[in-house]
Amino acid sequence: MKKVVKFGGSSLASAEQFKKVGNIIKSDPDRKYVIPSAPGKRFAKDVKVTDMLYHCYETAMTETDFRGLLEQIKARYNEIIQGLSLDMSLDDEFKTIETAFKNKEGIDYAASRGEYLNGLVMAKYLDYEFIDPVKYIFFREDGQLDQEKTYNTLGRKLNKVERAVIPGFYGCGADGKVQTFSRGGSDVTGSVVAKAVLADVYENWTDVSGVLVADPRIIENPKPIHTVTYKELRELSYMGASVLHEDAIFPVRTEGIPINIRNTNAPEDEGTFIVESTCVKPEYTITGIAGKKGFVSITIEKDMMNAQVGFGRRVLEAFEKEGVSFEHMPSGIDTLTVFVHQDEFQQKEQAVLANLHRAVHPDSIEMEGDLALVAVVGRGMKATRGTAGRIFSALAHANVNVKMIDQGSSELNIIIGVQNKDFEAAIKAIYDIFVTIRL
Amino acid sequence: MKKVVKFGGSSLASAEQFKKVGNIIKSDPDRKYVIPSAPGKRFAKDVKVTDMLYHCYETAMTETDFRGLLEQIKARYNEIIQGLSLDMSLDDEFKTIETAFKNKEGIDYAASRGEYLNGLVMAKYLDYEFIDPVKYIFFREDGQLDQEKTYNTLGRKLNKVERAVIPGFYGCGADGKVQTFSRGGSDVTGSVVAKAVLADVYENWTDVSGVLVADPRIIENPKPIHTVTYKELRELSYMGASVLHEDAIFPVRTEGIPINIRNTNAPEDEGTFIVESTCVKPEYTITGIAGKKGFVSITIEKDMMNAQVGFGRRVLEAFEKEGVSFEHMPSGIDTLTVFVHQDEFQQKEQAVLANLHRAVHPDSIEMEGDLALVAVVGRGMKATRGTAGRIFSALAHANVNVKMIDQGSSELNIIIGVQNKDFEAAIKAIYDIFVTIRL
Repeated sequence: MKKVVKFGGSSLASAEQFKKVGNIIKSDPDRKYVIPSAPGKRFAKDVKVTDMLYHCYETAMTETDFRGLLEQIKARYNEIIQGLSLDMSLDDEFKTIETAFKNKEGIDYAASRGEYLNGLVMAKYLDYEFIDPVKYIFFREDGQLDQEKTYNTLGRKLNKVERAVIPGFYGCGADGKVQTFSRGGSDVTGSVVAKAVLADVYENWTDVSGVLVADPRIIENPKPIHTVTYKELRELSYMGASVLHEDAIFPVRTEGIPINIRNTNAPEDEGTFIVESTCVKPEYTITGIAGKKGFVSITIEKDMMNAQVGFGRRVLEAFEKEGVSFEHMPSGIDTLTVFVHQDEFQQKEQAVLANLHRAVHPDSIEMEGDLALVAVVGRGMKATRGTAGRIFSALAHANVNVKMIDQGSSELNIIIGVQNKDFEAAIKAIYDIFVTIRL
Repeated sequence: MKKVVKFGGSSLASAEQFKKVGNIIKSDPDRKYVIPSAPGKRFAKDVKVTDMLYHCYETAMTETDFRGLLEQIKARYNEIIQGLSLDMSLDDEFKTIETAFKNKEGIDYAASRGEYLNGLVMAKYLDYEFIDPVKYIFFREDGQLDQEKTYNTLGRKLNKVERAVIPGFYGCGADGKVQTFSRGGSDVTGSVVAKAVLADVYENWTDVSGVLVADPRIIENPKPIHTVTYKELRELSYMGASVLHEDAIFPVRTEGIPINIRNTNAPEDEGTFIVESTCVKPEYTITGIAGKKGFVSITIEKDMMNAQVGFGRRVLEAFEKEGVSFEHMPSGIDTLTVFVHQDEFQQKEQAVLANLHRAVHPDSIEMEGDLALVAVVGRGMKATRGTAGRIFSALAHANVNVKMIDQGSSELNIIIGVQNKDFEAAIKAIYDIFVTIRL
């Protein structure tokens, strides 16, 4: 068995957290490849090391003395090193970094040092080999991962290494310099490593016990999801559930490697398994609820529109011309409603309206802003009759006015439009009916 | 007050029915302009006079002796004339028709004679002026009503006539010959006359006591709808409720003239008022239920489709290229479902699929046929929270599997996709919950 384990910033924020991580890794000899993030926050108002690095580098760019800031970063690492009683010093590393900052080595280089240094500490602490991804993970000219080169080089290397620490978040750009993934990209590194070694599982350790049924800012102590399919997760995260870096799904998905989201602070919890498909019956009828605020609906009315082949296409074209993407397009008989993102639409409103008038000569156009979309997602919904009935009864009892309903024949989700002000109430009502009351 | 009254074929099928019509007209002196259809069926297996005329004319076209057939038609009228003890003969009229048939005057001329002759009988019976629409209702070269000419000519004429009978269904084509509206077009004549005289109401007398909440072939003795808006009616009739000729709505709608659907056999019933808008509270939460069988759903899946501006437009284009119109397009996150008419789609299936593959490179396409769409329509739904909940609970209790839900922000209707086999059960369940149980 080979397990790739990635630890998030809060799991590595202090020596105390490092010890938890060490125990987790040592408790299972299959945990062979470790991807650390940079040290995160130790307390609510703490600053993440990555943010300190950005600030420090920006200061360096203004030709101001940045050594004090760099010292603060060094202090974060020294606190960890001392806390773990490690016999190591990062003095030389910090000298190199100081020089590189002076030479304006680049913002990506600066940002990546958080993971790089944490990787050195972690390798020392675990007595694992340190592998610098700048030599094994490659980006193409267009900024995307160079898959062929990466998997060849990284795979060949890791095949020869029994146990290794590979810092997350960065690799080598087409120009030979350090290049990072987008923020949160350590998830992607873990996924790339898991694919490169054909791991049996990719464990992603965070500070929550898995993917939650609903947003904990809205629902108090929401239940974790035991098993979620990639498709369900994609729908939940598209609709606002923040779990994993989105790009982290694709490498392992194609290899059938499950991702296991775990909690460093509660390693006894099983966490959530993210899988391609499963016959594990979901615990509740729904797998999860997610949502986003800030949509506008544009309702176009025109007598006999259904008789016109091409009407819908021309409507969408009016939005596309201005680069506005649509989220949903429910239709009645002589009406068509298009849901778009309010922030994307606002600037282009008048241009889109003009396009619509020219393209389809509507009888009327009505717009409503400040709408939210709620997605109820679940592979179990197909098998359970009456899910829709329960959702809409619950919403009615909660006095939530339903502005839109959209359920395609995949039956994996129902998307509901409500007013922004009803957003939290809607999610609470749905959570309660399926999870708390467990109807 | 001016009322325009149109009577359908079954209201004029026999002398007995004529007497009912006579009593209706005489009971209200405002009923000044009468539009008769041709005599309809007197009993289930009877033949409508219009169908007899078509058959007779087609026989004439084959140079076969058609006089026997014409005699049968004449007998229908004579039965009415004798039943009403009218002092009139249609012998000369039938001689003219015989000659015209021999001269191949045209199928429209032939079909129109049912209304023409019935108009003569009606005018005699009521002692109203007979007005032949061939002189007052005009079509353009493209076959559409010549509105300007018609309303000018007809309006000027009717302003000078206190009471008149104007046969339905036909007028004068651009070539000066008789031209008919499409089948059922007497409704349109009534509507055109109502607009020409700026009537206070257009009464459309049939054999049902108004527009029904649901199809009587599915629901036993469904309740009539007291007041329906044009918009609601348009949605119901688009989805299969057969009430009025669709074109009959437009002339009066723009003039704010209500249409009152009445029952010749139960004139005491108030019937249904079809109005532009109303503050009359609907009797039930829903106004009506209608539906159609025979749809196919095509579900297109593609990772990250939501990130692609233009994806939906390209999907619709793939259908449009083959001339296939779509009914609904519900969407999930990475899925888009297009509902189309099965009969329209079947021939073009492979071409559409090829277009789709070329246009959007889907991850997968799934199709499901034998689906039905049910529309629950009602202006009262917006004001009543929980309508959707009740609908879907009812469907769940009835073991109906919901394949699609589509509700735009007009909130005037909810459209539900079910399997063909569940169609009747779905309509029954919804009817019962809102009308029988009256939840």
